[in-house]
Amino acid sequence: MKIAKVIGTVVATVKDPSIKNLKILMIQPLDEQFKSDGDPLAAIDTVQAGPEDIVYYTMARESTLALPDPMSPVDAAITGIVDEVYLEDKGIVDREKIFA
Amino acid sequence: MKIAKVIGTVVATVKDPSIKNLKILMIQPLDEQFKSDGDPLAAIDTVQAGPEDIVYYTMARESTLALPDPMSPVDAAITGIVDEVYLEDKGIVDREKIFA
Amino acid sequence: MKIAKVIGTVVATVKDPSIKNLKILMIQPLDEQFKSDGDPLAAIDTVQAGPEDIVYYTMARESTLALPDPMSPVDAAITGIVDEVYLEDKGIVDREKIFA
Amino acid sequence: MKIAKVIGTVVATVKDPSIKNLKILMIQPLDEQFKSDGDPLAAIDTVQAGPEDIVYYTMARESTLALPDPMSPVDAAITGIVDEVYLEDKGIVDREKIFA
Amino acid sequence: MKIAKVIGTVVATVKDPSIKNLKILMIQPLDEQFKSDGDPLAAIDTVQAGPEDIVYYTMARESTLALPDPMSPVDAAITGIVDEVYLEDKGIVDREKIFA
Repeated sequence: MKIAKVIGTVVATVKDPSIKNLKILMIQPLDEQFKSDGDPLAAIDTVQAGPEDIVYYTMARESTLALPDPMSPVDAAITGIVDEVYLEDKGIVDREKIFA
Repeated sequence: MKIAKVIGTVVATVKDPSIKNLKILMIQPLDEQFKSDGDPLAAIDTVQAGPEDIVYYTMARESTLALPDPMSPVDAAITGIVDEVYLEDKGIVDREKIFA
Repeated sequence: MKIAKVIGTVVATVKDPSIKNLKILMIQPLDEQFKSDGDPLAAIDTVQAGPEDIVYYTMARESTLALPDPMSPVDAAITGIVDEVYLEDKGIVDREKIFA
Repeated sequence: MKIAKVIGTVVATVKDPSIKNLKILMIQPLDEQFKSDGDPLAAIDTVQAGPEDIVYYTMARESTLALPDPMSPVDAAITGIVDEVYLEDKGIVDREKIFA
Repeated sequence: MKIAKVIGTVVATVKDPSIKNLKILMIQPLDEQFKSDGDPLAAIDTVQAGPEDIVYYTMARESTLALPDPMSPVDAAITGIVDEVYLEDKGIVDREKIFA
């Protein structure tokens, strides 16, 4: 899984019926020190993540396993909210330290 | 999922019977601010998208879950039409603002 | 799916029994204007493509859905022959125009 | 599979119930000579790997096959601990030689 | 599928029980002219490939379809041995020509 920050919301009126009531968030992938890394993408939210939350997300077929309907045509889902990362050589990395 | 703009159509007379009646569109992936990002690809249309529509698309095995026959040999499908993206730090991004 | 040109054949005497009688072709991925884009790869042919044909191919698990045995250990299959691509801003792109 | 070194731990209180009791580790991918190669990622641990262990990991849908619940929304799992790599042209590569 | 050369062996005492008796080889991906292309990776051997053999390999979920237990947590498997590649514009490419 990769770590990301919630940066926005995608508004789509025409979408597959299987995900009609689910929120699509824009997320910015982060590296292990919570710095931006790569391009933002759209992901289905399964954990009620809010703006600027640090989350981890799951890609491809396995992302659908977190959805009400596992046969949904979805390839990225937010599946957890990250409190902090502990790195052997740097100690605790968390939102407060980085974004303060 | 990634966001893209519909830029054309692929004409293929020889194709797998499971997708015989489905349209194949050329789409240009966009970043979260609707700027071109990466190479165009061919995707099956499942939402009646038209030229220059902003869409989001699903990759790999899960893309087939939006098709009449989920066992089709397809690895990219257009699964929604995007009205706008709301970014925490930039506000609303939509077609009109970008392409005007 | 991505578009590619057939550039050769892979001869393999030792291969998985499930694909014993299928042809493995070398294909060169192309961009939407039929220019080379990325590295050639080996793909199973399911549409009787010939040398220099423009084709589109399917990657990963879904590529096997076009094979006689959908449980074959294959991750790329040629699943259609492209006649032409129509781009909104450039008109028709076809073999003759490009390779003439 | 790719080879990686365990560099940390991800602390997530909100996560999918299917992986509630599993550890999420941060791993740094390595090349065949155990040098860092690419960005760290978060992976579920299935082999009780410890800090600085050299492991190999499995990506995407197949990573879930190592979990108690194979329907977990997970796309990277540590599935083995590497003792050493033997390269035809360089001989044995192991932790001691590299990190000493 | 991609073409690769066998360059070594991975020794792992702790591994998933489903692949306990299978060999893990280090392979160097090659381009269509048998030149090194990209980073080596670890792949399960299903065709008794030997050191310096030219092979093709299958990635992701479909790689497991070549294994005794198709539910193994494996994402790369060697599924064929390549004798030669015939390219329309270059003729036959084989080991002898390249490595001689």
